[in-house]
Amino acid sequence: MSQLLINNIQKYVQLNDEEKYMLLSIMQNRKLRKRQYLLQEGDHSKYSAFVLSGCLRSYFVDSNGFEHILQFAIEDWWITDMMSYISGKPGKLNIDALEDSEVLLISREDQLSLFEKSPKFEKYFRIITENGMVSNQQRLLDNLSLPAIERYKNFIQKYPLFMQRIPQVQIAAFLGITPEFLSKIRGQISKS
Amino acid sequence: MSQLLINNIQKYVQLNDEEKYMLLSIMQNRKLRKRQYLLQEGDHSKYSAFVLSGCLRSYFVDSNGFEHILQFAIEDWWITDMMSYISGKPGKLNIDALEDSEVLLISREDQLSLFEKSPKFEKYFRIITENGMVSNQQRLLDNLSLPAIERYKNFIQKYPLFMQRIPQVQIAAFLGITPEFLSKIRGQISKS
Repeated sequence: MSQLLINNIQKYVQLNDEEKYMLLSIMQNRKLRKRQYLLQEGDHSKYSAFVLSGCLRSYFVDSNGFEHILQFAIEDWWITDMMSYISGKPGKLNIDALEDSEVLLISREDQLSLFEKSPKFEKYFRIITENGMVSNQQRLLDNLSLPAIERYKNFIQKYPLFMQRIPQVQIAAFLGITPEFLSKIRGQISKS
Repeated sequence: MSQLLINNIQKYVQLNDEEKYMLLSIMQNRKLRKRQYLLQEGDHSKYSAFVLSGCLRSYFVDSNGFEHILQFAIEDWWITDMMSYISGKPGKLNIDALEDSEVLLISREDQLSLFEKSPKFEKYFRIITENGMVSNQQRLLDNLSLPAIERYKNFIQKYPLFMQRIPQVQIAAFLGITPEFLSKIRGQISKS
């Protein structure tokens, strides 16, 4: 299973056997049942998680109790509360499993020590952080400027795999609309 | 002036003379008059800009002609259209100067070749990209969950220097509210 992580990294940098061993010896394997938490708000996000199987989400609960989903992560994706992970301070996000899942965890300390041992890992994380920042920029632009129906169309186009697996109620929470409104939008799209 | 960039980098990594020379020999100096563009939507964002003096903003114009500001950058800050800069594709953002400004530009090609020459630069950009991602996460959370008055209070607290220099109409466009509503909020805060 950990080959998935090696393959993901090797899209960007080639690792020798020693580097692969170095990496895998610090990653911690963890299984989560559906609905189980990897992180709860107020806790320090000690780990960044690479998803081997299943599906996780990160979300924020506002003062009215509404859940706002920041990210979904299926296999081959990373997920963490970046703010808490890099600062070491308590986080504002929850991360839980939408399906039975298996993840590989890396602590910030181990990640930083990996960077010191081989700059290839720093390059890899620099690249995926850049890509994450681009996704966030796109989402912020969408939120600022597009009506819900266009945001939904973008979501379908960008994440076709998510559509097949993630419940509609979760997708609505990601788009910032009610499940009823999402249902109405889906009706409009299937008619047109 | 370029000492400002060296100092910024040396908050994270120590450069030797050769590395400083390597960096400064590829940075291009550019002056912008107030209202002049560094980047227009539809163009490829060839450069990332480090601000030496003045103030720039990046913004997106929606289909109704409304400007949505993504970022302000005063001296000691970086600004670019990240999506376009790393993909090489045409961008969606405009970047212009709110004051007469001076910037140092680095092309993506030169940046990547700098990373190959010294991993210290990769570390530096990995760290500032992480920090940028954290800011974006915070902004997304604020947008999703806080009323305008709280977003304004956060802005004041987080960017006190911006408050003194950036016109209220620009701050309103950053917060996603009208200048009239911002004025009302300021009235409420000064009364309380």
